[in-house]
Amino acid sequence: MIRTGVFGASGFAGFELIKLLERHPKTVIVFAASETHAGKTLSDVYPCNQKIKLVAPDQVPLDAVDIAFLCTPNGVSAPLAKRVLAAGAKCVDFSADLRLHDATVYDEWYGVHPAPEMLTQAVYGLTEVYRAQIAKTWLVANPGCYTTCALLALYPAAKAGLISREPVIIDAKSGVSGAGVKPTETTHFVSVHDNLSTYKIGHQHRHVPEIEQELAEFAGRPLRIVFTPHLLPVSRGILATLYITTPPELTISDLHARYETCYQHEPFVDVLPLGQGATLAYTVGSNRCAISIHSAGVPGEFILVATLDNLIKGAAGQAVQNMNVMFGLGETSGLA
Amino acid sequence: MIRTGVFGASGFAGFELIKLLERHPKTVIVFAASETHAGKTLSDVYPCNQKIKLVAPDQVPLDAVDIAFLCTPNGVSAPLAKRVLAAGAKCVDFSADLRLHDATVYDEWYGVHPAPEMLTQAVYGLTEVYRAQIAKTWLVANPGCYTTCALLALYPAAKAGLISREPVIIDAKSGVSGAGVKPTETTHFVSVHDNLSTYKIGHQHRHVPEIEQELAEFAGRPLRIVFTPHLLPVSRGILATLYITTPPELTISDLHARYETCYQHEPFVDVLPLGQGATLAYTVGSNRCAISIHSAGVPGEFILVATLDNLIKGAAGQAVQNMNVMFGLGETSGLA
Amino acid sequence: MIRTGVFGASGFAGFELIKLLERHPKTVIVFAASETHAGKTLSDVYPCNQKIKLVAPDQVPLDAVDIAFLCTPNGVSAPLAKRVLAAGAKCVDFSADLRLHDATVYDEWYGVHPAPEMLTQAVYGLTEVYRAQIAKTWLVANPGCYTTCALLALYPAAKAGLISREPVIIDAKSGVSGAGVKPTETTHFVSVHDNLSTYKIGHQHRHVPEIEQELAEFAGRPLRIVFTPHLLPVSRGILATLYITTPPELTISDLHARYETCYQHEPFVDVLPLGQGATLAYTVGSNRCAISIHSAGVPGEFILVATLDNLIKGAAGQAVQNMNVMFGLGETSGLA
Amino acid sequence: MIRTGVFGASGFAGFELIKLLERHPKTVIVFAASETHAGKTLSDVYPCNQKIKLVAPDQVPLDAVDIAFLCTPNGVSAPLAKRVLAAGAKCVDFSADLRLHDATVYDEWYGVHPAPEMLTQAVYGLTEVYRAQIAKTWLVANPGCYTTCALLALYPAAKAGLISREPVIIDAKSGVSGAGVKPTETTHFVSVHDNLSTYKIGHQHRHVPEIEQELAEFAGRPLRIVFTPHLLPVSRGILATLYITTPPELTISDLHARYETCYQHEPFVDVLPLGQGATLAYTVGSNRCAISIHSAGVPGEFILVATLDNLIKGAAGQAVQNMNVMFGLGETSGLA
Repeated sequence: MIRTGVFGASGFAGFELIKLLERHPKTVIVFAASETHAGKTLSDVYPCNQKIKLVAPDQVPLDAVDIAFLCTPNGVSAPLAKRVLAAGAKCVDFSADLRLHDATVYDEWYGVHPAPEMLTQAVYGLTEVYRAQIAKTWLVANPGCYTTCALLALYPAAKAGLISREPVIIDAKSGVSGAGVKPTETTHFVSVHDNLSTYKIGHQHRHVPEIEQELAEFAGRPLRIVFTPHLLPVSRGILATLYITTPPELTISDLHARYETCYQHEPFVDVLPLGQGATLAYTVGSNRCAISIHSAGVPGEFILVATLDNLIKGAAGQAVQNMNVMFGLGETSGLA
Repeated sequence: MIRTGVFGASGFAGFELIKLLERHPKTVIVFAASETHAGKTLSDVYPCNQKIKLVAPDQVPLDAVDIAFLCTPNGVSAPLAKRVLAAGAKCVDFSADLRLHDATVYDEWYGVHPAPEMLTQAVYGLTEVYRAQIAKTWLVANPGCYTTCALLALYPAAKAGLISREPVIIDAKSGVSGAGVKPTETTHFVSVHDNLSTYKIGHQHRHVPEIEQELAEFAGRPLRIVFTPHLLPVSRGILATLYITTPPELTISDLHARYETCYQHEPFVDVLPLGQGATLAYTVGSNRCAISIHSAGVPGEFILVATLDNLIKGAAGQAVQNMNVMFGLGETSGLA
Repeated sequence: MIRTGVFGASGFAGFELIKLLERHPKTVIVFAASETHAGKTLSDVYPCNQKIKLVAPDQVPLDAVDIAFLCTPNGVSAPLAKRVLAAGAKCVDFSADLRLHDATVYDEWYGVHPAPEMLTQAVYGLTEVYRAQIAKTWLVANPGCYTTCALLALYPAAKAGLISREPVIIDAKSGVSGAGVKPTETTHFVSVHDNLSTYKIGHQHRHVPEIEQELAEFAGRPLRIVFTPHLLPVSRGILATLYITTPPELTISDLHARYETCYQHEPFVDVLPLGQGATLAYTVGSNRCAISIHSAGVPGEFILVATLDNLIKGAAGQAVQNMNVMFGLGETSGLA
Repeated sequence: MIRTGVFGASGFAGFELIKLLERHPKTVIVFAASETHAGKTLSDVYPCNQKIKLVAPDQVPLDAVDIAFLCTPNGVSAPLAKRVLAAGAKCVDFSADLRLHDATVYDEWYGVHPAPEMLTQAVYGLTEVYRAQIAKTWLVANPGCYTTCALLALYPAAKAGLISREPVIIDAKSGVSGAGVKPTETTHFVSVHDNLSTYKIGHQHRHVPEIEQELAEFAGRPLRIVFTPHLLPVSRGILATLYITTPPELTISDLHARYETCYQHEPFVDVLPLGQGATLAYTVGSNRCAISIHSAGVPGEFILVATLDNLIKGAAGQAVQNMNVMFGLGETSGLA
């Protein structure tokens, strides 16, 4: 059994991870740490019968785990990751601290990086793309939720050099759990319910540099994006509608076939049949990402629709998937 | 034109009141005060095009208004009401400060009363019951939202001495705006959405003493209640399901006829035909209260269902209705 | 491996059952039948990647299964259950066809029973109460969703003879999936969203005779109920608020202790600590039933709050739990 | 008083119109017709206290009205409009029958036109653009809901020749009332709630030809669009996110200033200050359209966000606005 520890267990992603690890046939939870709720159980924080005791992060038995998951904020994670590695455990980090390869980009979007020397150590944990590296690393930077959705949607086209116009338009919609557990005016029920709103629109959201970094990797050249996040009146799920321009001779059947081929062996990515559209309901509650491909009615103009559960494939599920890869378990173990 | 001023204009009830007063053909808004948002406009606080400037509560021109509405917290309202009356204006208070006749009851439920001498001055603003007194007073204690719903449902039966068993069971369900604008764990979208929960169950909610005070008035003797508030995943509206026992010979037709007679001239209380059930949707967005009457399948056991919009008939709408009565305007003016 | 077959697989409960059986470590699905959608897959009916082929109910290989689940309508189930038993398989029926012991009661509420001779054969599948009989039977009548919730809430009190006043009041609230997959005016999004409504109020809902039958079993004497179903703007979950009168000397601690004792070995029934309230969110997505106990503020008057997921503990989950018992598997197998 | 009649009064738009006309200070409702619900009142169809009797469409006193509103389906409206005009009344039609100038385009999208000779008579009822013609006509084709939202967002840019790239991307999200009152699988609560889905994506939705027709008018040349409708889990409201490319030297301040100038005298179009985003909540329940303008982070790439209430500014409210113009009433009469 893999011995696991979870930091930040009382946040939405941490709680989701605890639930996944509990059901996982090959893992045992050694500790669940929470800065805010140390001393309580998860059933004190959420309506559930989960009785795991939350401990203070500085009192966890790091030497008793094989892997630690950091569901901790930006800035907190990087130093914590150091501690975990030093204690001889593997590490999957949910924050943005280790996602960007370039410290100056981090500084621009997040402020001064707490431990820039870590940036080169981490593997970017988009499992479908970096599986081989993930299998060998001790340190994974779990991708952002929007990022995972956008990147899985664009990967086959970008990789094949089919994206011929910038900026690539990503019109993304997310449920409220993406905003975190902290009560704010933005997350007040009355603010969200019966509403739809945009935020950090254009080129402002912190997932922008992460998406552009990876798109550049895929395409072999920089690809600028426009990113328009919307806040949906649902608790979970992301749906991204992406508009791409390709060489005009590319037919929708060709494009669809490329996507199917690219993801044919992927257990968690479903390229839907032509004519069907990806929906939130298809993926919420699972570790799946669904992608559908649509003609925009003009040669070379296509619409991609991609969905996932932001707390599972966009966070805790992908983290478990990465752990499975890191420890040589079946990749779907605990996730099917 | 009646010159009006609103304190606490940036809360949910205050904002609703501003909207009602703006559409009212016989009123003009002289000031809108907000402790928290002074200096801003309402369009800075809520998504709307309402450009009224919010002023600090201690800088309002009290002598320039005919009536002030206090959408202010318990403890703040009573002293403020004094100030308003002293300035020569009439006053409708939304807090609990002036609703209870007995200061010791107030102290028990709310802590020490800030101005107990005011308690005898105010008229309880349940318009349908106390219209005559409201017409003559300068000071109205606007009833609570749950209270209005429960009391309008029970008034005809209690008044006629038909309630033969205690406690009267009031199973009440409210939308989230009843919890106020302040973001808390309770009002976080993810806590409320797809959920239903109870709170302050039994005999604990602060509307209990207010309901029991008035029931005693109606019935001429104390009537104990059980009160079970539930938090609904909607923004607005209260539905109360009440279970009463009457003398067994009372038929549902008799009971229904009494309700119809009691409310036949009321512009805002609809006793639904037998066989129809009151729903949130019937009343939300209006100043109406809908009441339906149902047999429990046993002689002398009946179910009453009552609904209203907690921010309108349960707060701002009833306040305007009271103002209409206080100034001799048509009672439906600005509310139809 | 237990070989299973599902009739009515394309309804809400059937689809939920398919998902549970797929994850169950000890079962294999041999067929999934659907009258309406034969020839399609479940992914044609619901947004999901479930590729099981739906077959016509009269073309299923009954002799190839160890157990068949009937997620079929009242009137269809009883004859089908006969067919299943004749083919040598065990059977769990989701309809009302086999729940009532008395054919005349069935006739009164549902119309003429299609196979009254079956009524004596079936065991009522409230697992926590009838576990021993379920272990020995070939035919289980899976209880209704409201029924399961109400009965688990009342069982310890009724069994102990603590319910001293009739009617027992059951104020129940259900999500829309309880109304079934068929589109009607009642289930139109615009009718339900932002609304709360009652239906079949008093003593009219078809779960009434089922609840009263079992209450009489528990208490050893008839116990009349009042039953008020409400339609909640959520997809899943039932919360019932029950009002009971007990002998006045019974303290809440005594009552709570009895409930804890009664359910102490039950894997799926959680009696919450005093002071905590059962919520939909606690149980939705699981096979759990949560029960909380509250004082009504008067000696001998108590409020019980019980919740469950209507499609799991109220339908498919309880069916799997019953199957586990029937085949001597661990009772939580596939459900934890 | 303007004497009005409403056909199709029991649909969502018709019911909304009845509510607006009732509050309108200058109109009286002479009849409300409904094919489906003739003989009932609106309170039989919707939860409300609206007692207007619904009459059969062929029994209405057409000669007793000054204007008739046709909230009737495509194909039904055109012949009905003829009847209305022949009876000497003015007419506002909500269907698509009179919106397209070119009968061959109609035929392509809707099937054979029932009365192509009508197409030249109607004025397209986008009030802000065609006010002068509306004032003089007897026949108005009220625009579609998506169309109104998209066109008001694009009008200032298209008119000024600032749109330099095709296709213009319109990522639109609508509440469920847009799908009409008829219960279908698509409008089932369980299908919509907690979900987001696309439909008729690319260049397939019937509002496409209407949007392209008007864009060509504004720009003086054809402008191709991509149109991606999404179904939101809300009852009302449309939010459209539009992506346009302009000449690169155009600054966001310039663009914003143009929008402000264009709409400065419009009572129902709010161009929000830079930095603010249009939200559903801003417009739902009102006849307003809100538009915000955002930089996409690249010169010449902009995002427009536009919202309105699909049943008011997108249907009944705009119809009343058009009536106000047709009869020389104040344009905001009954709508403020």
